[in-house]
Amino acid sequence: MLRPMKKRSKKDGLPPGTLVHIGERKAEELKITIIDYDEAHFQERPLGTIEECFVFKDQPTVTWINIEGLHEVQVLERLGECYGIHPLVLEDILNTDQRPKMEDYGEYLYIVLRMLDGSQKNGGINTEQVSLILGSNFVLSFQEAGGDVFDSVRERIRSNKGRIRKMGADYLAYTLLDAIVDNYFIILERMGEKIEVLEEKVVTHPTPETLGVIHHLKREMIFLRKAVWPLREVIGGLERGESPFMSQPTKVYLRDVYDHTIQVIDSIETFRDMVSGMLDIYLSSVSNRLNSVMKVLTIIATIFMPLTFIAGIYGMNFKYMPELEWRWGYFAILLFMFGVGIFMLSYFKKRKWL
Amino acid sequence: MLRPMKKRSKKDGLPPGTLVHIGERKAEELKITIIDYDEAHFQERPLGTIEECFVFKDQPTVTWINIEGLHEVQVLERLGECYGIHPLVLEDILNTDQRPKMEDYGEYLYIVLRMLDGSQKNGGINTEQVSLILGSNFVLSFQEAGGDVFDSVRERIRSNKGRIRKMGADYLAYTLLDAIVDNYFIILERMGEKIEVLEEKVVTHPTPETLGVIHHLKREMIFLRKAVWPLREVIGGLERGESPFMSQPTKVYLRDVYDHTIQVIDSIETFRDMVSGMLDIYLSSVSNRLNSVMKVLTIIATIFMPLTFIAGIYGMNFKYMPELEWRWGYFAILLFMFGVGIFMLSYFKKRKWL
Amino acid sequence: MLRPMKKRSKKDGLPPGTLVHIGERKAEELKITIIDYDEAHFQERPLGTIEECFVFKDQPTVTWINIEGLHEVQVLERLGECYGIHPLVLEDILNTDQRPKMEDYGEYLYIVLRMLDGSQKNGGINTEQVSLILGSNFVLSFQEAGGDVFDSVRERIRSNKGRIRKMGADYLAYTLLDAIVDNYFIILERMGEKIEVLEEKVVTHPTPETLGVIHHLKREMIFLRKAVWPLREVIGGLERGESPFMSQPTKVYLRDVYDHTIQVIDSIETFRDMVSGMLDIYLSSVSNRLNSVMKVLTIIATIFMPLTFIAGIYGMNFKYMPELEWRWGYFAILLFMFGVGIFMLSYFKKRKWL
Amino acid sequence: MLRPMKKRSKKDGLPPGTLVHIGERKAEELKITIIDYDEAHFQERPLGTIEECFVFKDQPTVTWINIEGLHEVQVLERLGECYGIHPLVLEDILNTDQRPKMEDYGEYLYIVLRMLDGSQKNGGINTEQVSLILGSNFVLSFQEAGGDVFDSVRERIRSNKGRIRKMGADYLAYTLLDAIVDNYFIILERMGEKIEVLEEKVVTHPTPETLGVIHHLKREMIFLRKAVWPLREVIGGLERGESPFMSQPTKVYLRDVYDHTIQVIDSIETFRDMVSGMLDIYLSSVSNRLNSVMKVLTIIATIFMPLTFIAGIYGMNFKYMPELEWRWGYFAILLFMFGVGIFMLSYFKKRKWL
Amino acid sequence: MLRPMKKRSKKDGLPPGTLVHIGERKAEELKITIIDYDEAHFQERPLGTIEECFVFKDQPTVTWINIEGLHEVQVLERLGECYGIHPLVLEDILNTDQRPKMEDYGEYLYIVLRMLDGSQKNGGINTEQVSLILGSNFVLSFQEAGGDVFDSVRERIRSNKGRIRKMGADYLAYTLLDAIVDNYFIILERMGEKIEVLEEKVVTHPTPETLGVIHHLKREMIFLRKAVWPLREVIGGLERGESPFMSQPTKVYLRDVYDHTIQVIDSIETFRDMVSGMLDIYLSSVSNRLNSVMKVLTIIATIFMPLTFIAGIYGMNFKYMPELEWRWGYFAILLFMFGVGIFMLSYFKKRKWL
Repeated sequence: MLRPMKKRSKKDGLPPGTLVHIGERKAEELKITIIDYDEAHFQERPLGTIEECFVFKDQPTVTWINIEGLHEVQVLERLGECYGIHPLVLEDILNTDQRPKMEDYGEYLYIVLRMLDGSQKNGGINTEQVSLILGSNFVLSFQEAGGDVFDSVRERIRSNKGRIRKMGADYLAYTLLDAIVDNYFIILERMGEKIEVLEEKVVTHPTPETLGVIHHLKREMIFLRKAVWPLREVIGGLERGESPFMSQPTKVYLRDVYDHTIQVIDSIETFRDMVSGMLDIYLSSVSNRLNSVMKVLTIIATIFMPLTFIAGIYGMNFKYMPELEWRWGYFAILLFMFGVGIFMLSYFKKRKWL
Repeated sequence: MLRPMKKRSKKDGLPPGTLVHIGERKAEELKITIIDYDEAHFQERPLGTIEECFVFKDQPTVTWINIEGLHEVQVLERLGECYGIHPLVLEDILNTDQRPKMEDYGEYLYIVLRMLDGSQKNGGINTEQVSLILGSNFVLSFQEAGGDVFDSVRERIRSNKGRIRKMGADYLAYTLLDAIVDNYFIILERMGEKIEVLEEKVVTHPTPETLGVIHHLKREMIFLRKAVWPLREVIGGLERGESPFMSQPTKVYLRDVYDHTIQVIDSIETFRDMVSGMLDIYLSSVSNRLNSVMKVLTIIATIFMPLTFIAGIYGMNFKYMPELEWRWGYFAILLFMFGVGIFMLSYFKKRKWL
Repeated sequence: MLRPMKKRSKKDGLPPGTLVHIGERKAEELKITIIDYDEAHFQERPLGTIEECFVFKDQPTVTWINIEGLHEVQVLERLGECYGIHPLVLEDILNTDQRPKMEDYGEYLYIVLRMLDGSQKNGGINTEQVSLILGSNFVLSFQEAGGDVFDSVRERIRSNKGRIRKMGADYLAYTLLDAIVDNYFIILERMGEKIEVLEEKVVTHPTPETLGVIHHLKREMIFLRKAVWPLREVIGGLERGESPFMSQPTKVYLRDVYDHTIQVIDSIETFRDMVSGMLDIYLSSVSNRLNSVMKVLTIIATIFMPLTFIAGIYGMNFKYMPELEWRWGYFAILLFMFGVGIFMLSYFKKRKWL
Repeated sequence: MLRPMKKRSKKDGLPPGTLVHIGERKAEELKITIIDYDEAHFQERPLGTIEECFVFKDQPTVTWINIEGLHEVQVLERLGECYGIHPLVLEDILNTDQRPKMEDYGEYLYIVLRMLDGSQKNGGINTEQVSLILGSNFVLSFQEAGGDVFDSVRERIRSNKGRIRKMGADYLAYTLLDAIVDNYFIILERMGEKIEVLEEKVVTHPTPETLGVIHHLKREMIFLRKAVWPLREVIGGLERGESPFMSQPTKVYLRDVYDHTIQVIDSIETFRDMVSGMLDIYLSSVSNRLNSVMKVLTIIATIFMPLTFIAGIYGMNFKYMPELEWRWGYFAILLFMFGVGIFMLSYFKKRKWL
Repeated sequence: MLRPMKKRSKKDGLPPGTLVHIGERKAEELKITIIDYDEAHFQERPLGTIEECFVFKDQPTVTWINIEGLHEVQVLERLGECYGIHPLVLEDILNTDQRPKMEDYGEYLYIVLRMLDGSQKNGGINTEQVSLILGSNFVLSFQEAGGDVFDSVRERIRSNKGRIRKMGADYLAYTLLDAIVDNYFIILERMGEKIEVLEEKVVTHPTPETLGVIHHLKREMIFLRKAVWPLREVIGGLERGESPFMSQPTKVYLRDVYDHTIQVIDSIETFRDMVSGMLDIYLSSVSNRLNSVMKVLTIIATIFMPLTFIAGIYGMNFKYMPELEWRWGYFAILLFMFGVGIFMLSYFKKRKWL
C-alpha cells in the first residue's frame, strides 16, 4: 500500500552521513549483478561479494553494477569508497523516501527516482526507489527490492540489439530512465481503464462502494503525482546540464524521455480532473437518488394520508351521522376516495414527479 | 470517443527509435498524395508507391506530400531515409498520443498537433494527430485517418487564389496550421451552443440526464484543453524561433495564428468556468427541488395527521364518551377539523411555503 | 446578451486577409465622421463617401476618422489602401471576436479592445469591439454599432477644454482609451449595487430565483473578465513601448489608464470572490431551510403518530377490553394523550428544535 | 460598511487632471496641521489657511503637513501649485478608491495606501485612504477623515523620543507607513479572536446566524486582502528604489515594514483558509443535524406505523373475526405490539441510530 | 494550542527598535548555556550572568551561546551590545511571531525559524520560535522556552562524534538547522498515522466527531504550512548566498537540508490534499447515510400507509357494507393486505433499495 511517510524516526539525532536504511526491508537477500560490455565484448554475472566488481573500475568498458536490496549497509559503504561516492549520496540511497532529484558531484551524477510496479494481484501500485550513479564509464543502480523493469535493457545488451553496445555509460543511464518512464505508461493505461469503468458506474448506479473506489483512486493519483512531478525537472536538468558524462547524441534521446515525462504528468493531471469531476457527479447522483426516494415517499403519503383520514371520519362512533345510514353511502365514499387518489396522481403527473 | 490513454503497452521494452504504430488503425488503406507547385506550375497526384515522390526532392518547387494512414511502417521508413528524418521523429509520428510540440532538427522543423473532427453524427468530437515536417522546399504531413480540414488549402493552391503559390514551403506549413486552428473555432462554436442550451435547462428543469450531459461536456473540455493548451507554446516558438525555414513575412501570419490559438484557449477557459458553474447550479437546483418536495410532504402530513388523530379519538369504543351522544357532535367535529385545516394552511402561507 | 462565441464558421476555409464581417450586424447604416483639429483650427463633419477623408492624410493637423458599422467591407478596404493598413489588421477589425491586443506595425499602432454599454433597459450589458489605429497624425476608430462613450471627448475637442487641442494624435488615442476604461467603472458600479442587493437577499430569504440571478451575475463576470484582463497587458505595452507615435508626456497619462485598468481587474476579482461566496451561502441557506422544514414534519409526526396509535388501540373491537367499561376511561385516556403531547414538545424544546 | 465600489460616475467624461472629490465626505471640516522640526527645534500648530505653510517650504527643517478631509478641492490645488505636484497625483488623492501604489515623480515620491480603523462600536472595520508625498525635506499627508493612527508618531516627535528628530523626511515617511502597517496587526488580532469564537461555535452548535457571521467575515477578508496585498509591492519598491529621497539607513527600517507587510498578508491568507474551511464544516454540520432529525422521524414512524396498522386491523368491523372473541385477545395483541416495538428499537440500536 | 495571531497590541505605537517581548512567557526562568570548542578543547557550562560569556568573543574557538526564555529584555540588550547586533534584529528575536527568514547584516547572519514540539500529551503540536545569529566564530541561539531538539547536537560535540568539532561555526549552525528540520519529519510521521486512521474511519463509519477531527487536522496543517513554507527560501538563500561565514563544504550539507525542507513541504501538500479529500468523502458518506435512513422510512411508510388505509376502510361504520357480512371477508382482506405488502417489497427489491 502507498503510505504517506516512511519511518524516519529511527534516524533522529544521528550525524549527517550516518548510513541507516530507512524504509521496510523489501528484498529477501542482497543481490549484486554486474554487466560489463563494449561493442565487442559482453560479460554478465551475479557477484558473491562486492569486492569482485572493483577490477572493472579502471577498464574502458561500460560497467553496470545493479544492487537489489539495501539492508546491508556495509556493502554500500565499500562500494562508495571504491567509486568515491560522497557519504550524503549513500545516505540518500538508503533513505528510501527521496523526492526525485539529480545532483552533479563532478566525478559522477547522482539521480534518484521512483519505479512503479503495477503487477500486484490486488490491482494496487507498488513503488520502489531507484538510485542511479553515472560516472565516465560506469552506472551503479540501487533498488529496494528484487524484480525491475530493466529486463528488456539487459536483453538488448546481451543480444547487441539497437545501438546500446555502441554507446557509452550515459546511453545506458538514459536507457534505464527510459525503461522506468515507459513503465509509467503501463500503470497509467491501467488507471485509465479503471477510471472509465468507474465513470460509467458513477452516472448510472452509484453505490457507497463507488465512493470508496473514487477515494482510493484519488489517493493513488496523489502519490503518483508526487513521484512523477519532480522528474520533469530532473530529466530537464540532465538534458540541459553541463556534465561531461552526458554526450550530445544521448541528450537528443533524453529530450524524448523528457517529452514522455511531460506526457505522463499531463495524463495524471487529466486523470485528476476526471476523478475530482467524478466526485462531484457522485454527490449529484446521490442527491438525485435522495430526491427520487423522497418523491416516492411524498407521493405515497400524499395519496394515502387524506384517504385514511376520510376512512377515519366514517369510523367515528357518533350517534348521529346521517351518511352512515344511506343505502349507497359506502360505495359513494369508496368512489370519492378513488377520485381523490386519481386527482393526486394527476397532480403529480403535472408536476413531472411520475 | 475520447479515451484518456492510448495503448502503449505493445511498445514496452523495445529500443528507442523502433517504429511501431501506437493507436487504433483509423484509415482503411494508406493514401499518399503529392502536390508540387511554384507560381507558374502545379501538379497534384495520388501516389502508388512512396518512391515516386523522391524525384521532387531536389527540385526548387514547393512539394507537399500528404500521407493518410500510419499503419504501414515501412513506407515511413523509406520516406524518412530519403528526407533524412531522425528515427525518434518517425517514432513520434507513429505514436499517436503526442502532446503538441515543435522541435528544430536543423535540417527541418518537426511540428505535431491535433486536428479535431466535429462532423460525427452523434455530436461527439474525434481527434486525430497531425505531424508536419517543414524543410527548405517541402512539407510532409502525416495524418492518422483519411479526411481532413485541408480541402480549402488544396483548392487555393489549385486555383492560385491568394498569395499561396507565390510563397514558399513555410507559408504552406502556416496555411495548414491555420486551417487546423480555424477548425477549432467550428468545434468551439458548436460547443458554445450546446452549453447555452444546457444552461437554460439547468436553471429551469434539471433532470438526472442533464447531469450526464454536463459530465460529458466537462470531459470533452478536459481533452480539448489538453490538445490545445501546448499549441500556444508551439506556435509562439515558431514565430519567435531562429529557424531559417521560417521567413519574416510568414512570421507576421504566424502571429495571427498565435492570436487565434490564444482566443481558442481563452474560450475553452471561459467554457470550463461556465460548465463548472453549471454543476454548482445543478446541485443547487436539485436541493431546491428536494426542498419543494419536502414542503409538499410536510404540508400534507401536518394537515392530515392531526385530523386523522381527531377522527381516531371519536373512533374509540369507550362506553362513556359524552360527545358521541350529542345531536350535532358529528357536524361540530367536522367544523372543528375544517378549522384546524384552515389554520394549518394559513400558517404555511405565513411561512411562505405556499 | 453575452454569447460565448461569435459565428466564425462563415469564414472557414478562406485565405488569410480575406475581409468578411464576423458578428451580427449591429448598426443600421455605416456612419463615417471626421474631426480634424490643431490648436487653432477645428472641423467636424459626417462623410458621405470614404474618399472625402483622404485629403486630410497629408495635413499636419490631427485627424480622427470614426467609423460606426462594419458591414460595408469595401469602405474599409478603400480606407486601408489609403492609409496603408495591413490586410490582417483589416481582417481583425472585421472579426468582432478579438481578444484585446496591441500590435506595432511600424507605420502605425493597432489597438483593439471592448467597449461596454450598460444602458440596456433590461439591465444587461452590451459589448462592442472598438479598433483604434494610431498613426503619426491620425487616429482611425472602428465601432460595430452606433452610439459610443466618446461624446465627452468630442465636446472637449470642440470647446478646446483641457489640453487635448494642444497635443497630438497619441493624446487623442489616450483620451479614447481613457473614456472606454472610465466607462468600465460605471458598469462595475452598477454591478456592485446588484451584488449588494443580492447578498442581502441570499442570507435573509433565498428563493430559486436568487439562484438564477447569481448564475447570471457569474456569467456576466466571466465575460467582463475575458474582456478586461488582457487590457492590462495592452496598455502596459503601450506605456513601455518603443513606438515613436507615443510621446513621453502622453505616457504619463497612459500610466493613469493603466492604474485604472488594474483597479477594474481588482474589482472584478473581488466581485467574483463575492459572487462565488454567495453561491456557497445560498446552498447553505437552502440546506438550513430544508432542515427547518424537516423539523416541522418531524415534530408533527412525532407528536401525532403515538397519539393516533393510542386512539387506534381503543378503537379495536375486542370483546374483552376492561378500560372501555371504566367510568372515566375516556377522560383518563385524553389526559394521558395530552401528557404524551406535552412530553414530546418539551423534548423538542430541550433539543432546541423549537 | 465596506462597499465594493466608490461612486465614480460623477466624474465620467471630465478631462484627466480635473479635481473632483470621489467618495463620501467623511470629515466634518477640513483640518490642516503642520509639524516642523529638526534635532533642535520643534513647532506644531493647526493652520487656518493653506497659505501659512508655504514659508516652511524652503527651510532645511523637516516639514510635515497633515490634511484631514478632502472635500475642499481648492486647498489641494493651492498646495499642489506651491509644492509642484502633478495634477494626476492630486486627482488620485481625491479619488478615494485607489489601489495602494507608489510612483516616483522625480521631485517627490507619491505613496497611497489604506489606513484601517477598527474602533467602530459595532465591531466593523472602517477603511480610509491615506496619501503621502515625500520630498527632500517635507512630507505631505492627506486623509479622508479626522482621527488617525499617527498619535504615537506625533508624541515621539514632540518628546524627541527615539531617533526620529535626528533623521530626515524619509524616516518620517517610514514612521507613518510603519504606524499604518502596525495598526493592521491590531485589526488582525481582533479578527483572529472572532474566528476562534466562531470555529468553536461552528463545530458545536451551528445556527443559521453563524452562516451570516461567516459570510460577513469572508467579505471583510476579501476587502482587507484587496487593501493589503499591493502594499507588498509598494514597500518593496520603496526599499529597492533608486529615489535619492530614501536614504540607506531608512531602507533598513523599510525592510522591517516589508517583513511586517508579508506577515500581515500571510495571516490574511491563513484566516481565509480558516474561514473557507469553516464554511465546509458548517455545511457538514448542517447535514449531520438533518441526518439526526431524519433519524428521529424514521424511528418514530417505523415504530408507530406498524403498530397503528395492527390496531387498525382489530378496529375493522367484520362480522366474523375470531380473535375478537378470545378472552385474552386484547392483552395478547398489546403484548404483541409491545414485542414489535422492542424489536424495532433493538434494530435501530444495532444500526447505531440510537 | 495553535493560535492564529500573537498579541502585538502591547507594542502598538512604540518607536522601532524598542525591545518588548511579544508572546506568552513560556519559560519559567531564563537559562543561558555556553558551549565552547575546537578540535582539541571543549567546555560547556550554564551561565549566571550574560557578562561571563563576553570573554569567549575574541577567542578563535567556536562559541555557542544558547538562551532559553526571552522575558528578560536587558539580557538581550547586553548581549546585543557585546556582539554588535542591530536593534531591529533584537526586536525580531523578541517578537515571537516571525515568519521564517534570513537576513545578512554583513557582520553576521540572522536566521529565524520555528521549532516544533510534538511531545504534548494531548497529541497537539507546540511551536516555538528559534533565532540563530551566525558570526565568524560564534552562534547565538534564542529559544522561547526550555527544552529543544538540540540534545543530539550537544552530545556529538561533547563526544567529538562525526566531523562537528573539526568544522567552524557555520557547520554548527547547519547542524542546528538540520536538527530542527529533521524533527519536522517526526511530527509529519505522527500526522501521517493520524490521517491513515481517520481515512479508514471516514469511509467505514463517519460520525460528527470525525468532522471535528478533520477540522482540527486541517487547522494544524495550515499552521504547519505557514511555519515551513518560507523555510525553503531561507535555506536556499543560505546555500546560494555570498556570505563569507558560510564555507563551501558546509554548503554541500545545506543542500541536504534544503532537500529535506522540500520533502517536508511536499508531504504537507500531500497531507493537505488527503485531508481536503477526506472532507469531500465525509460529506458524501453523510449523504449516503441520509439516503439509507430515508429509504428505511420510505419503505416502512409505503408498506404500512396503504395497509392502514385498507384497515381504515373496514373500520368504517356504514350500515350497508356487504363485505363485512361475508364469512371469510376478514381472512380474505388479511390475505389481500399480505399480498400488497409482498408486492411493495418486491417493488423495492427491483429498485435495489433492499
